[in-house]
Amino acid sequence: MRTKLSDVRCSIARTMEVLQDSWTTLILRDVFAGISRFGQFQEDLGLSKKILTARLDRLVEEGILEKRPYTDRPPRYDYLPTAKGAELFSIIGAIMAWGDRWTAGPAGPPALIRHLSCGAHTTAKVVCDQCGEPLELHAIRAEAGPGGRTGHGTRVLGPLLASRCSPKKRPS
Amino acid sequence: MRTKLSDVRCSIARTMEVLQDSWTTLILRDVFAGISRFGQFQEDLGLSKKILTARLDRLVEEGILEKRPYTDRPPRYDYLPTAKGAELFSIIGAIMAWGDRWTAGPAGPPALIRHLSCGAHTTAKVVCDQCGEPLELHAIRAEAGPGGRTGHGTRVLGPLLASRCSPKKRPS
Repeated sequence: MRTKLSDVRCSIARTMEVLQDSWTTLILRDVFAGISRFGQFQEDLGLSKKILTARLDRLVEEGILEKRPYTDRPPRYDYLPTAKGAELFSIIGAIMAWGDRWTAGPAGPPALIRHLSCGAHTTAKVVCDQCGEPLELHAIRAEAGPGGRTGHGTRVLGPLLASRCSPKKRPS
Repeated sequence: MRTKLSDVRCSIARTMEVLQDSWTTLILRDVFAGISRFGQFQEDLGLSKKILTARLDRLVEEGILEKRPYTDRPPRYDYLPTAKGAELFSIIGAIMAWGDRWTAGPAGPPALIRHLSCGAHTTAKVVCDQCGEPLELHAIRAEAGPGGRTGHGTRVLGPLLASRCSPKKRPS
C-alpha cells in the first residue's frame, strides 16, 4: 500500500500536502507578486480552467487564500492571502534564493525582491531564531519532537530521531 | 499546450523542477537527518523500488546528492548531499517552520532541530540578508530581474514586474 502524505507525522510532509504541486507553488508566487484574479492566473501559468479551479479551491479550503468578490454580476473574486498564506512567503523566499544561486546562470535572477523596510534588494536568508546565525546543514541535528511518531513515512526516521533525543526533564 | 516547468524563467519554477514532488522533498528530509542508504529510504517512505530509484537517480543527476560506494560486492552506495544539495536545507527548514506553526496542532512539532553552533532548539527564520529583519510579505515588492523574460509561466507576471522596475542606471 502506498503511503499517503497526509498520514505522515512530519511538518514537511504536511506542508507539502498543502503546497501539493509545483503549479500551486507558482500560483502562490503570483499571489505574492500581487496577481489576484482567475483570468490572470490562467493567462500567466497557461493552466486549464479545470486544473486552476481545483488548485485555487484547494488553497481556499486550506485557509491559505480567501476569496473576496470584486463584482456581483457575474460573480468574480480576488484571491488574496490569509495570514496563514502570507507566512508561506518565507518558504517561497527560501526557494527563490536557492534557485537564484544555483539555477539562474549568467543571465542573473529572473526577479528581484525589494525589502521595503530597508529599501534594499534582498535575498532571503534562513537563520536560527535563537542566535541569528545562518542555519546550515553541517551545524544542525534533527531530534525527536513531542508530536512525532514512528509510522508511515517515518519508519526509519522516527527511531533514529528518538535515539538522539536528550533525556526529558521531569518535574522534581 | 501545457506549460513545462523547466521553460519558465523563474527561480521558483526551476527549483520546484529540481524538488519535483513531495516524495523527493521527504527523501531530502531523510538525507538531512542522516539517512543515506537505499533500503533505509525505502523502508522509511514506503516507496516502490522503481519510484525510489527514479527519484534518487534524478537527485544525483541534478547534482543534489552524490553516490559513494560503501561496499563493492554487491555494489551499494551511500547517498550524500553535495554542497548544492546541502543548501536546500534552508528550504526544508522554512517548510518545517511553517508546518510546525500551522499544521502541528496541540501534539506539538514532530521533530526538533538542534542548532549545534548555539546549542539551542531552533526554528528556521527567514530574514533579509541586507538588514537582518524578518522578511514578511507586507514589506516586500517583487521587481523584474536581469534574467527575467515574459513567456511561459510569466505572461502576466513579466510585464507586472517590469512595470515596477526602477530605471536602469547606465554607465555615464
